[in-house]
Amino acid sequence: MKADLLVTPQQFVWEETFELRSGDQLEGFELIYETYGELNASASNAVLICHALSGNHHAAGRHAADDTKPGWWDSAIGPGKPIDTNRFYVVSLNNLGGCHGSSGPLSTNPVTGNPYGPSFPTVTVSDWVRSQALLADHLGVETFAAIIGGSLGGMQVLQWSIDFPQRVAHAVVIAAAPKLSAQNIAFNEIARHAITSDPEFQDGNYRTQNTNPDHGLGIARMIGHVTYLSANGMGTKFGRELKSGDITSATDVEFQVESYLQYQGANFAKTFDANTYIRMTHALDYFDPAQDNNDNLAATLAKATAQFLVISFSSDWRFSPARSAEIVDGLVEAKKNVVSACIESEHGHDSFLLPIERYFEVLGGYLKRVGAEK
Amino acid sequence: MKADLLVTPQQFVWEETFELRSGDQLEGFELIYETYGELNASASNAVLICHALSGNHHAAGRHAADDTKPGWWDSAIGPGKPIDTNRFYVVSLNNLGGCHGSSGPLSTNPVTGNPYGPSFPTVTVSDWVRSQALLADHLGVETFAAIIGGSLGGMQVLQWSIDFPQRVAHAVVIAAAPKLSAQNIAFNEIARHAITSDPEFQDGNYRTQNTNPDHGLGIARMIGHVTYLSANGMGTKFGRELKSGDITSATDVEFQVESYLQYQGANFAKTFDANTYIRMTHALDYFDPAQDNNDNLAATLAKATAQFLVISFSSDWRFSPARSAEIVDGLVEAKKNVVSACIESEHGHDSFLLPIERYFEVLGGYLKRVGAEK
Repeated sequence: MKADLLVTPQQFVWEETFELRSGDQLEGFELIYETYGELNASASNAVLICHALSGNHHAAGRHAADDTKPGWWDSAIGPGKPIDTNRFYVVSLNNLGGCHGSSGPLSTNPVTGNPYGPSFPTVTVSDWVRSQALLADHLGVETFAAIIGGSLGGMQVLQWSIDFPQRVAHAVVIAAAPKLSAQNIAFNEIARHAITSDPEFQDGNYRTQNTNPDHGLGIARMIGHVTYLSANGMGTKFGRELKSGDITSATDVEFQVESYLQYQGANFAKTFDANTYIRMTHALDYFDPAQDNNDNLAATLAKATAQFLVISFSSDWRFSPARSAEIVDGLVEAKKNVVSACIESEHGHDSFLLPIERYFEVLGGYLKRVGAEK
Repeated sequence: MKADLLVTPQQFVWEETFELRSGDQLEGFELIYETYGELNASASNAVLICHALSGNHHAAGRHAADDTKPGWWDSAIGPGKPIDTNRFYVVSLNNLGGCHGSSGPLSTNPVTGNPYGPSFPTVTVSDWVRSQALLADHLGVETFAAIIGGSLGGMQVLQWSIDFPQRVAHAVVIAAAPKLSAQNIAFNEIARHAITSDPEFQDGNYRTQNTNPDHGLGIARMIGHVTYLSANGMGTKFGRELKSGDITSATDVEFQVESYLQYQGANFAKTFDANTYIRMTHALDYFDPAQDNNDNLAATLAKATAQFLVISFSSDWRFSPARSAEIVDGLVEAKKNVVSACIESEHGHDSFLLPIERYFEVLGGYLKRVGAEK
């Protein structure tokens, strides 16, 4: 079975000037991506996966047979899985500004020959979608059978349906929102502040200074973890168990939840780039497609021609079911074809990454009909 | 009117050994406190105010006629106010381990002659309550007419009712919980981690090193602010307003909420001691009076003889109405005299500090009956 899922990342190179929404431009860029399954002759079975804040192109399968861990959404993507690679040609990329192989702060600026570092421009969800459209052109995909994403990925799906309505047949928007709340922006700001106030951040020039803002990145990740879980879920997972017996002099980790968070924070700092983290959170903050339409989401979605599946999770308080309902309401008001489901789960926002039975029934059941209608 | 409320902090000195729950001991301690109103001849009109995480003894009035700001709960304490100083003799202190004048990390260890700094021992809610009882002895107060506190202050009120049942006639527990959730412990842990991973923390010896973990303390405060407010309240207060027009290069503060948080964080770092912050959050984490009774809260509360008022706020998600209901349920099961109210407010946990009309009607109305029953 493993052999079926051995994948090799590929590189897409765009050599022309690429204008960004900020007004800045990139003199070309590279995107790293993976594909799973085979594109059919009519190129009608392509599915695009859009990743969330800390995701990357490696969504499924293994790079080597002895890899201990598969891609981040391997539970959902593969032969016979909800996103069935026996039927679909699945494309997954690392977004612009990322730190896993696509052009980003760790890349070399072709104009200067130096690493971009903090000079890599601000990227937005609409910039990502346009770059993904160029990748689709390159792959010979005019219209995606489905575009699927959770959280920040779901925002990209929405943007696709607005910016390239003819190129997306089905839009699957999971655990997302039409724009962030002030609370969400605030959590992102604290995370960024933790990173930029770390003396090792060096105004973003940590690579050339041979430092790394490990502490700041760790705190950012810890905040993410707590807010991506639900209060009840954390209670179930950790309770209030003390790590070492009783209250002593309180100088070290004592509750199990503290130990878990510190591990997650330290681990993240080793594998994720701080300048990328800042750009990804800004892309989240700035996402607000209705802004140019006097905050009228229905009017903004009027252009969309896709059919929509909108999924939320009962205990997700960072992208709550009420926020998904705003998307559904906008689609209904715009007279679009939409089905939605709120999945019972105590795993909070993290639910969208987990193989929850009911969730996969809804997702897989919906996708079974995709393509079959033709 | 201002002249009525001019107050001068006073010092209570305890010169004997004080055993702490951690097993450590203090060779004496000092508590700074203020009083408002007059103790009556029978010493039956005393009210104790217990402060929360970042509070102090200066709850009401002004230290000088030209002080720009009064004490932190001046809206509630004063002549004709809900905690009416025309009727009550109100006592407010800075808890052990604090940084506003009571013995704490900033004080000198009488044994060594050096500042305590990080060597100041772990203090718990029950330690505080015992030290407050010594202060009450000093003031000639055998039984408090009422003990009142919000958040961590409410935990002290609960502990009083259990540890010194005869010394508290009315217990007013506001926006509290019988113990923290794993999520709450996690937020505290992130705040502590932000402080201790700040290079200027210097293992807690920042004073002797002439540094201060401003960044870490700032982050801790920012996390506090976001979690003490409600998502809706933040939306109302800040919306998604950009501070400066449009998306540019994302190098500085852009949303109003970011500006607010950065100001609050920086300001807090100037006025609060990091070692104290760590101790206060640990006291919160450790509070769990039912722990020694096989987690049976009702059995733990069986000893209490006070009458209880338990208040919560609809949008408080850090100490939610459901957590206050756990206290009420425990009291009801233990057949205690309890009334409770959940106040509609969009201000989250911060509500307990605000002069919300319905809240003050409930609090003031309840306290009008206190003492009148005799």
